[in-house]
Amino acid sequence: MPNTSDVSEVPQVDVREVLAVHGGRLIADGLPPPDVDDARASVARWADWFDHWMALSDRYGELGASERAATHDVTAGEFLWLSCMAAHYAQFLWFHAPEERERGQRRKQERYAEAAPLLTPVAERIDVEFDATTVPGYLRIPKGGADRTPVALLLGGLESTKEEWHRFEDLCLRRGLATFAFDGPGQGEYFFTRRLGPDFHRCTTAVIDVLTARPELDMTRVGVVGRSLGGYYALESAAHDDRIRACVAWGGLFDLASYDAMDPLARLGFAYVAGYSDPRDAADHLRTSIDLAHHVSGISCPVYLLHGVHDRVIGPDQLDKFKRHLAGADVHWDVRADGNHCCHNLSHLVRPAMVDWLRDRLANDGR
Amino acid sequence: MPNTSDVSEVPQVDVREVLAVHGGRLIADGLPPPDVDDARASVARWADWFDHWMALSDRYGELGASERAATHDVTAGEFLWLSCMAAHYAQFLWFHAPEERERGQRRKQERYAEAAPLLTPVAERIDVEFDATTVPGYLRIPKGGADRTPVALLLGGLESTKEEWHRFEDLCLRRGLATFAFDGPGQGEYFFTRRLGPDFHRCTTAVIDVLTARPELDMTRVGVVGRSLGGYYALESAAHDDRIRACVAWGGLFDLASYDAMDPLARLGFAYVAGYSDPRDAADHLRTSIDLAHHVSGISCPVYLLHGVHDRVIGPDQLDKFKRHLAGADVHWDVRADGNHCCHNLSHLVRPAMVDWLRDRLANDGR
Repeated sequence: MPNTSDVSEVPQVDVREVLAVHGGRLIADGLPPPDVDDARASVARWADWFDHWMALSDRYGELGASERAATHDVTAGEFLWLSCMAAHYAQFLWFHAPEERERGQRRKQERYAEAAPLLTPVAERIDVEFDATTVPGYLRIPKGGADRTPVALLLGGLESTKEEWHRFEDLCLRRGLATFAFDGPGQGEYFFTRRLGPDFHRCTTAVIDVLTARPELDMTRVGVVGRSLGGYYALESAAHDDRIRACVAWGGLFDLASYDAMDPLARLGFAYVAGYSDPRDAADHLRTSIDLAHHVSGISCPVYLLHGVHDRVIGPDQLDKFKRHLAGADVHWDVRADGNHCCHNLSHLVRPAMVDWLRDRLANDGR
Repeated sequence: MPNTSDVSEVPQVDVREVLAVHGGRLIADGLPPPDVDDARASVARWADWFDHWMALSDRYGELGASERAATHDVTAGEFLWLSCMAAHYAQFLWFHAPEERERGQRRKQERYAEAAPLLTPVAERIDVEFDATTVPGYLRIPKGGADRTPVALLLGGLESTKEEWHRFEDLCLRRGLATFAFDGPGQGEYFFTRRLGPDFHRCTTAVIDVLTARPELDMTRVGVVGRSLGGYYALESAAHDDRIRACVAWGGLFDLASYDAMDPLARLGFAYVAGYSDPRDAADHLRTSIDLAHHVSGISCPVYLLHGVHDRVIGPDQLDKFKRHLAGADVHWDVRADGNHCCHNLSHLVRPAMVDWLRDRLANDGR
């Protein structure tokens, strides 16, 4: 196992640029816009980023605790979740300082665990046994729905994790889909057990096996949604488990052929989740592990492929590869001329569209 | 009835200033942040404001219609409501051109009426008979709640109306409160029937009378929430109807003693809703009609009073008057040092706080 415990220098990162690229995502995923404005106004240097967001996490944590003491459970759940999210964004690109990053991750996980029973509907922790480890996830089931509910499995990406799906889960739940968000190899909590590798799909299969035992769920109607690198994992999973009836690749990656040309922070991030401290050492492992060309022939379910033309994270070469390799597949192409990475700048339009498409694919009549 | 049908020149209004003052509100009330960013980037002159937002309303209306045709009811309801809201913000300060303003109002009402049955829970239209007219409102009842639900009556202000309460209603509904938002004299739809006057509270009483017949509601547990000028109406209503068990004055007005010193657009707005085309002609009517000193002795229920120290719309003189006149009352003072008008810049903190307070006051145990 390569060493990731050394703390590097703070890399040259422009806070303005981070907020330009990711600001829409922070808001779409549920951070209050005033908090993002405040970061823009008050975080001048990247070196101050982590502490700024952890302090916000502290404040939401205190608010959550006091509201819980006042039996304001709905509000407490929201604030504890915001505490979780602030910790998430503290560490999300903080790959150069593994100890701080782990502190942010642990805070995020703890706060989500506190919030989970207070959410409406609740998020139920499920630890899925897999290869003598446990894959951690949260199940939410719509209230007052049908007896047996179809399920959307939700897969994060390079640094997005199960805790971040809350608002998207709400879109699913309101449309009658149960949700299960989990961390796989290299992601969130499970990073500390297993790093990025070539077989994420085996976790997905283990998850489906375990959820099949739940009488509230109809596992003959399961779909998968993956975002960014998670879009890759979703397609890889669909290729290997034909119980997956529909797959949404949301701003997804095809491969890491252009890893060497990525910006330094992205390369550091991929290396980190794969367990390498030097991005150069990680290149071969990453290129071999992440290549949809190895899996694409196995995809038989319908696919929703969302891509933003202005995506500066996953570029047009990736979209071209999807078009070439999925030419014969049943793909709903949603390529937005005005979209950025994951079309986070159009989240109010594209997120409902993806969920409605999935719900239609998982409807009882199978349309 | 004074004449309001003439179209005046477009007043000197700075779009940047409107968005600085109201941008937080637009987002807190539910407009997608990218739409507000787009207005900031693309509306250079105030003369272009109305058409810009009506065009956005058109686009959401088309999206809503196509999603409804696809039986994506949740998404259709959201888009139709966004079409309503875009029309609202087209006309909200458009007092100088009554014909365009009415067109925006009518569009808003129509789109909300289309959205209403698609919302979760649905919004049920109720026309309350009052003085040989009908006061229009929408009732929403939390799903799967108690047999008889406490109710929050929601009162808009100078230009805010029943349709704008949707997101706030969701906060109430999630906490077990039913909601009834309605337009009174000078507001929204009812403006065309009756202009601002000294007895808004009679509408509130008529509403309570009618809702008392609904078996799903517990009208021994009714509260009122009013925003900005609506904060005045809420307190006035509480002073005259002792069935109101708790009152939230959210960035409320105390009186119009300083009407002559208000900015021109605010004066034009108050004159408009009172039925005057010239703000100077409206001054006496407005100062006489809106003065809480006439009513304050009648207030016996607990009051939540929220005010932002940086409120540039309702200034510190008004807060001082509240403090003086409500000194002996049961008031929960929530004065935020970093808040703007209605603390819209802190909506994620103050809105849940107001709803939780109201829910506690309306709990069965009466704490």
